[in-house]
Amino acid sequence: MKLASIENKTRDGKLVVVSRDLTKAVDVSQIAPTMQFALDNWINVEEKLKQVYEDLNNGSVSNIIDFNEVKKMAPIPRAYHWADGSAYVTHVELVRKARNAELPESFWTDPLMYMGASDAFIGANDDIEIEDEEWGIDFESEVAVITDDVPAGISPEEAIKHIKFVTIINDVSLRNLIPNELSKQFGFYQSKPWTSFAPVVVSVDELKNEFVDGKLHLPLISILNGKVFGTPNAGIDMTFNFGQLISHAAKTRSLMAGTVIGSGTVANQGSPTGSSCIAEVRCLETIKDGKPSTSYMKFGDTIEIEMKNAAGESLFGKINQKVKKYEKK
Amino acid sequence: MKLASIENKTRDGKLVVVSRDLTKAVDVSQIAPTMQFALDNWINVEEKLKQVYEDLNNGSVSNIIDFNEVKKMAPIPRAYHWADGSAYVTHVELVRKARNAELPESFWTDPLMYMGASDAFIGANDDIEIEDEEWGIDFESEVAVITDDVPAGISPEEAIKHIKFVTIINDVSLRNLIPNELSKQFGFYQSKPWTSFAPVVVSVDELKNEFVDGKLHLPLISILNGKVFGTPNAGIDMTFNFGQLISHAAKTRSLMAGTVIGSGTVANQGSPTGSSCIAEVRCLETIKDGKPSTSYMKFGDTIEIEMKNAAGESLFGKINQKVKKYEKK
Repeated sequence: MKLASIENKTRDGKLVVVSRDLTKAVDVSQIAPTMQFALDNWINVEEKLKQVYEDLNNGSVSNIIDFNEVKKMAPIPRAYHWADGSAYVTHVELVRKARNAELPESFWTDPLMYMGASDAFIGANDDIEIEDEEWGIDFESEVAVITDDVPAGISPEEAIKHIKFVTIINDVSLRNLIPNELSKQFGFYQSKPWTSFAPVVVSVDELKNEFVDGKLHLPLISILNGKVFGTPNAGIDMTFNFGQLISHAAKTRSLMAGTVIGSGTVANQGSPTGSSCIAEVRCLETIKDGKPSTSYMKFGDTIEIEMKNAAGESLFGKINQKVKKYEKK
Repeated sequence: MKLASIENKTRDGKLVVVSRDLTKAVDVSQIAPTMQFALDNWINVEEKLKQVYEDLNNGSVSNIIDFNEVKKMAPIPRAYHWADGSAYVTHVELVRKARNAELPESFWTDPLMYMGASDAFIGANDDIEIEDEEWGIDFESEVAVITDDVPAGISPEEAIKHIKFVTIINDVSLRNLIPNELSKQFGFYQSKPWTSFAPVVVSVDELKNEFVDGKLHLPLISILNGKVFGTPNAGIDMTFNFGQLISHAAKTRSLMAGTVIGSGTVANQGSPTGSSCIAEVRCLETIKDGKPSTSYMKFGDTIEIEMKNAAGESLFGKINQKVKKYEKK
């Protein structure tokens, strides 16, 4: 099934079931008013939501909403836990190479993961509001999953079973604030301001051919200012699958239903089909020319992120955002 | 006013107003069913909750609950944002000194802050369940505040006005997992499993004499296995007040109502009245004797954390926890 949260003047939005082709939606607030409510009560609501999804695809429901016409929030507008991995170690290796730093051998076996700000995820068409262009505004195209309740100490194999939904996200990064934060060793804070989500999340059963072995085997398309920037395949060079990432996050504690786990920037070795962030291109340029030539994003720049199945159909809908100067009120 | 969340078989518990002396409580679910609901709708509920608090203290409400008899959850059992600072830089300096590392000068002006797991805060009397003693189990006694909605780019002075509640917490740390996580630079993950809260949060207006200039000017008492371990004053040597910590967290993005901001381990220079974590004592021992002699916590060990006002009355109630071996189900 496909689920979304649409604007209704509340912090959590209103949960809707969205048709497979993303054109129609239906209010399911009588089953679950919000995405978090659905995840909190998954055992009780799953079958009911599935039935609505079937009926919607068959055209046998009334009160249909035109999904193109509604304001989309992030499918989970605020979450209690957001853990972003760096599963494409080939990307991390490249970043290190560009600054002549060794990649520790352990990075191939011990996932890098940071905790991100989950209190205000933004919608697929929301502006990316940043105060200062000099902070080095970049997008990061990623795959993300949403779990149900995960017990502490779970194995990677068992962890995969706790994945309920898959989607794509834009983990906005402020590159020029990162070096200082990394040097302090306490992780990212100011350098990771916003994360935006595709319009819908898709249940795992809907992705039988695409989500296999804890990886999503499709190209992730990033389009910067109208030009294709990269289409790396998210199923290739993913060193840690989502089961391994969840198991890492849950080593010493349980995870609450609604935990969002990110893949990190999707990247393929050598970047043969482009990149999922500007930083990677700047690293390639630095290695080749001694310095980067592609700039970070400026106010007014746009980023589109999308994933299509083998038939060319958009799976999660499109992220399509503009960078805008943040003005203090 | 004083608020708590009590067990009612839901993830968020039931909000109650607690009497000043912490003996009585009253169900306020008709005003706000949960702490997060109250914070989401603060403008509409504040006066109503205040009135209940006054009435409860005056003995003019019915349906009074014996607060000693109820199971306390964390006052905010799950939050959307949990940012822990290291505001007592004297503690950070000591830790560095023990491993012969320099403290960067910038640490006195640029707060250290990490994002913590907020999806499952635990209650004041909940066991600290850890799989392995060898992970180096430690408590960290801290002060924490809860904010309303904070806009991005706020000044420290303005930020103080967004503090709605104050409390004390135990930020459990797994010391032997920290070095590897710090070396990866992405912050803490597995090394910060659980955070427990005192039974109640107290509104700022209730702490006119104690919460001044964004700092809580009282000793924080930690009692390990029945013996006083430390009573440093939380108002002394706090390099960054809570306004500065909030301003730091909100530099590039807004913070959602219900954001919890921690002070980091409370410490006074030279530790004249003891420490708020075992690690600090081990650092002092290392500097003096070349090696630490105090062990981390073992299964069965207890930790009590409390703060009393000038009259000797407990302000937030007592954290009183036992370390227990986690058994996978």
